[in-house]
Amino acid sequence: MPAPNPSEKALVPFVSVANMMRLVHHVGIEPMLIGLAAAIEADFRRWETFDKTPRVASHSSEGVIELMPTSDGEIYSFKYVNGHPSNMGRGLQTVTAFGLLAEVSTGYPVLLTEMTLLTALRTAATSAMAARYLAPKNATTMALIGNGAQAEFQALAMKAIVGTERVRLYDIDPLATAKAARNLEDFGVEVTVCSSSQEAIEGAQIITTCTADKQYATILTDNMVGSGVHINAIGGDCPGKTELHRDILLRADTFVEFPPQTRIEGEIQQMDAEYPVTELWRVVTGTAIGRRDERQVTLFDSVGFAIEDFSALRYIRSQLGGGEFSERLDIIADPDESRDLFGMLLRAA
Amino acid sequence: MPAPNPSEKALVPFVSVANMMRLVHHVGIEPMLIGLAAAIEADFRRWETFDKTPRVASHSSEGVIELMPTSDGEIYSFKYVNGHPSNMGRGLQTVTAFGLLAEVSTGYPVLLTEMTLLTALRTAATSAMAARYLAPKNATTMALIGNGAQAEFQALAMKAIVGTERVRLYDIDPLATAKAARNLEDFGVEVTVCSSSQEAIEGAQIITTCTADKQYATILTDNMVGSGVHINAIGGDCPGKTELHRDILLRADTFVEFPPQTRIEGEIQQMDAEYPVTELWRVVTGTAIGRRDERQVTLFDSVGFAIEDFSALRYIRSQLGGGEFSERLDIIADPDESRDLFGMLLRAA
Repeated sequence: MPAPNPSEKALVPFVSVANMMRLVHHVGIEPMLIGLAAAIEADFRRWETFDKTPRVASHSSEGVIELMPTSDGEIYSFKYVNGHPSNMGRGLQTVTAFGLLAEVSTGYPVLLTEMTLLTALRTAATSAMAARYLAPKNATTMALIGNGAQAEFQALAMKAIVGTERVRLYDIDPLATAKAARNLEDFGVEVTVCSSSQEAIEGAQIITTCTADKQYATILTDNMVGSGVHINAIGGDCPGKTELHRDILLRADTFVEFPPQTRIEGEIQQMDAEYPVTELWRVVTGTAIGRRDERQVTLFDSVGFAIEDFSALRYIRSQLGGGEFSERLDIIADPDESRDLFGMLLRAA
Repeated sequence: MPAPNPSEKALVPFVSVANMMRLVHHVGIEPMLIGLAAAIEADFRRWETFDKTPRVASHSSEGVIELMPTSDGEIYSFKYVNGHPSNMGRGLQTVTAFGLLAEVSTGYPVLLTEMTLLTALRTAATSAMAARYLAPKNATTMALIGNGAQAEFQALAMKAIVGTERVRLYDIDPLATAKAARNLEDFGVEVTVCSSSQEAIEGAQIITTCTADKQYATILTDNMVGSGVHINAIGGDCPGKTELHRDILLRADTFVEFPPQTRIEGEIQQMDAEYPVTELWRVVTGTAIGRRDERQVTLFDSVGFAIEDFSALRYIRSQLGGGEFSERLDIIADPDESRDLFGMLLRAA
């Protein structure tokens, strides 16, 4: 005999990868990046209303698995995300993720969704939102060092939100650069393929580093970085993984998401605990200064924070409409009489 | 145009509530409780191989949402679980849960499952496994105070694993007791409906308390508890929520799962930090003594720990067979070329 049908309350909307892709195309890639950046910016404005905690990381020799929870007191969110640089060699994604929204008042989930694509989108949207506050006025050229899974999202978010017109690509693997250049062909951004990091950053006002090696790498050295640039450092995002030479950090004004997490995971793990940083939310709310002058080097030491996922999950939920882009998942046991869980099980026999 | 079909690697086995109920009946309720207890005991034997951390709790006035991760270095697990006593009045479950297993080496999920039912099963299996080490020899009668969603699972696990023959039920709500008595009718255990906690514990060698109020309650006072009993305290499981008068704790030998978590959440939150406890895994491995003599009062101050969920998830995975009890969920983005996440999105247009 089949089990009884679950009730409405027991069914959680679920966005599969296929449905997320359909939703992205329905909204449009650039409009979605703009929508996500607006949602993230709105939540940065009310930063103080959130429960904040460094993500809970489980490290191994191959990578890391992290849980990233937060809550604004009404809605709770968390993301499951891994980071395994060695996955690339096995034909697997370096970063995969899924996430959930739940009602704080009942603890019941209200959305479960893939977040591999959504993390790429929200990371790019966050970078671009930060660059809008920190990059030199009228920045038109970005360098993109590291042309892996995150690259095209970064290029399009900077175009859509900051207004960059040119992107200069470099990766130690020319195949990665060729892939990114090909994917960006039809988006109205001028793509230049470069043969070194040095060449890529020529004339760029925004320098984005998003490489995946789990090690202390030096993608940028101090002498490569001129004045009047904004560095958007994405790849240094776990202990033992950095991309910038520390001399750059000594010269830059550094902006971060959540200092207790960034001091462990970000570029600033190279610096001592007194190294000064500014929280990005303070720039967004106007309680701290972003870019002071045209010659300043600004650095967004981005590691990714739970509030960005919260914003992204709520944005996706707001776009789901009448169920065209989601299934309903029977993941919550919901007996007719709440204390009669065992009776529900018995009746299913 | 429909999105391309996801590859095998991208599909995660998912056990819905309906399928979990089918699986429980396929295995049998008591055989599954025995299997779960064996899996949990085996993992308690290798306690030191696990990454252990207190669960990550997000508290609100209505309840708590928790993430419970652990790993043995090869497999990672976490559970999402809420505890909302006020849900009962709204016709919702006090506790709902789901959980996941992932490969540590890749970070890829390998199982997603409902865990509302599975948590009830594993909690009862853990209680019974502990009672087998701690209860007086030949315990035949259990008192069950609090007859909510967890009650019948507790009664059957004690019967299947410890060999109890009689259960004495009491709840402040007679309807809950009637429900539990009715559900237990056909399981070969002698059920006595009692009208007070005092009456329920008469002649019982095992006293289980599993009430749901989020407050410092006193379900048992010291004068109620005779010598030579084992107390299985389930309901005191978050800050501000206890069931036993502290005088009982002064008289009992107390066994716990993971002291850093239990000191925050368990009955022993009433005691100072020096209050002595024995870790249950040490009793299981024979490096600590469980029950010393027949007059001793033992207390299992159970709050639920991530390793029990790990064991339960692995047990369920081992029982899934060829997919008869699971669906396959498109939750992991998996482009043909691992760095070409954006290309996968483009091609889905």
